Amino acid sequence: MLSISFQQIKESYKRIRSYIHHTPVMSSSQLDSETGCSLFFKCENLQRTGAFKIRGAMNAVLQLNDKERKCGVTTHSSGNHAAALAFAAKTFDIPAYMVMPDNAPIVKQQAVKGYGAEIIPCKPTMDDRERMLNHVVCETSAAVIPSYNDHRIISGQGTAALEFLEEYPDLDMLLAPVGGGGLISGTAIVGKSVNPNLRVIGVEPLLADDAKRSLKAGKIIPSTYPNTIADGLRTSLGDITFPIIQNYVDEITTVTEQEIIDAMFLIWERMKIIIEPSSAVPVAALLFHDIKQAGKNVGVILSGGNVDLKSLPWMKA
Amino acid sequence: MLSISFQQIKESYKRIRSYIHHTPVMSSSQLDSETGCSLFFKCENLQRTGAFKIRGAMNAVLQLNDKERKCGVTTHSSGNHAAALAFAAKTFDIPAYMVMPDNAPIVKQQAVKGYGAEIIPCKPTMDDRERMLNHVVCETSAAVIPSYNDHRIISGQGTAALEFLEEYPDLDMLLAPVGGGGLISGTAIVGKSVNPNLRVIGVEPLLADDAKRSLKAGKIIPSTYPNTIADGLRTSLGDITFPIIQNYVDEITTVTEQEIIDAMFLIWERMKIIIEPSSAVPVAALLFHDIKQAGKNVGVILSGGNVDLKSLPWMKA
Repeated sequence: MLSISFQQIKESYKRIRSYIHHTPVMSSSQLDSETGCSLFFKCENLQRTGAFKIRGAMNAVLQLNDKERKCGVTTHSSGNHAAALAFAAKTFDIPAYMVMPDNAPIVKQQAVKGYGAEIIPCKPTMDDRERMLNHVVCETSAAVIPSYNDHRIISGQGTAALEFLEEYPDLDMLLAPVGGGGLISGTAIVGKSVNPNLRVIGVEPLLADDAKRSLKAGKIIPSTYPNTIADGLRTSLGDITFPIIQNYVDEITTVTEQEIIDAMFLIWERMKIIIEPSSAVPVAALLFHDIKQAGKNVGVILSGGNVDLKSLPWMKA
Repeated sequence: MLSISFQQIKESYKRIRSYIHHTPVMSSSQLDSETGCSLFFKCENLQRTGAFKIRGAMNAVLQLNDKERKCGVTTHSSGNHAAALAFAAKTFDIPAYMVMPDNAPIVKQQAVKGYGAEIIPCKPTMDDRERMLNHVVCETSAAVIPSYNDHRIISGQGTAALEFLEEYPDLDMLLAPVGGGGLISGTAIVGKSVNPNLRVIGVEPLLADDAKRSLKAGKIIPSTYPNTIADGLRTSLGDITFPIIQNYVDEITTVTEQEIIDAMFLIWERMKIIIEPSSAVPVAALLFHDIKQAGKNVGVILSGGNVDLKSLPWMKA
């Protein structure tokens, strides 16, 4: 039934594990007492390149053949996927061409450059991103590695939940943010395979609630340039991620921009770790919405930690 | 010869270990390649109350007798020691009275209040701090738990290095910040006991270089209200910590305010963890001074992570 099997994710993990960090799981007694649950945070913000995206990107790059490796890889991405793909390509001396919208966060553009990839700027519309990507492919014959709507990528992202549930098999609930759906799809496949009773919950910004609306409508409803602070979650679902979410995610819930900022601040202050706004989205649902049950073991995937430290949301108030 | 033995520190560790976090050791391949060393960071910023100080405070509180517990504990401190002592006292329902200078960071004052201690404000001079402390002792008969110049405190702080060297016995060099000298004293005793060839280096802000000057002069030269951003390192050495440093610390080195800020920013950006300025002091020495040798295994104790997130040093430039 699944377009991606649990077995494929386990194989992906074997493929990538020596190239990625086994990220730590952290907890906070203060946040436990505030929520009445036992919370476990899978720290993908401490992952290589500062986000879970390296899992999928590495999984894709490792499956390229020699000819593809020679021509290089390309994608369009506003941030973490571009950095991850650049890093994965650099690991194997593969050329990398990143189409990036000119409003992508400066730190994320710098990271991509730092990993030696060539940046091809474009306008921040899906049309222009795809137009420039096609142009790059024509010029270079580089292999396109999509940021989420791709079996290799979804399998790779699922390995975060795999590590998490191997270490913490007693979770009752597992939360992850929803952008294009790569992370939540992989997470849901792993979660339901390991424990069919595990509740898998996707959380998205109210300003980018296309997954919630798509589920309700029974078809993909794209988001139209949502202006959420969670810059990793502005994308729409794809034709591979949407049916997985329909079948294996128990609930999609939404949070406001202020809730995202407050949750991000709280994690920084209490846990002394840096998470980006997208990571704060599921935390906000736990802190400010009634989705949890007292006494339960709740896992949260903190998806990334790439933030412009010179421009923090609580400084702008 | 030592006023505090390695054995005492091991006993302190047995006493406190169930009340503290065994903090993780992190590394960064980027910082490794920038320094040419293998760097290992002992993350006491992820410790309970956000700093190593809970080790000493817990060790002291656990050695109080019943009568002392009833009367409570007191200290003067501008920050992390006060929070740690408040937390330790709260753990055993012991009253706590904290004399805090009125210029102590707001977040640190809030933490002390959050742990249920009573704050007695004073002027930010050593005279007024001690005057108010004496007043508190007269009123309450509370036991004074000094912030560093105390055998129980130094033994407790030494347990950070004990955990560190148990896990990483092959360190060639170990760095810690120097304020009043509690952490570096405990670190040096453990370091030299485990491996006499281990180089133990203390680092302090140039603006608060009293340890360096004291070593040179052969007697304690107090610092006079140094205005360093490293608010945890503004204190002077004590008559217990000074001779330990004289005998067991290989070198004291200093760093500038800008180096502290730059090192702090770099750790936040690369490692996605929050450290306070005092923690950045030894990192700055590694990054910007010629104290290291290529290929060596270098350990750094990141002492704490309590920062006012709404007022960051790189925002003020």
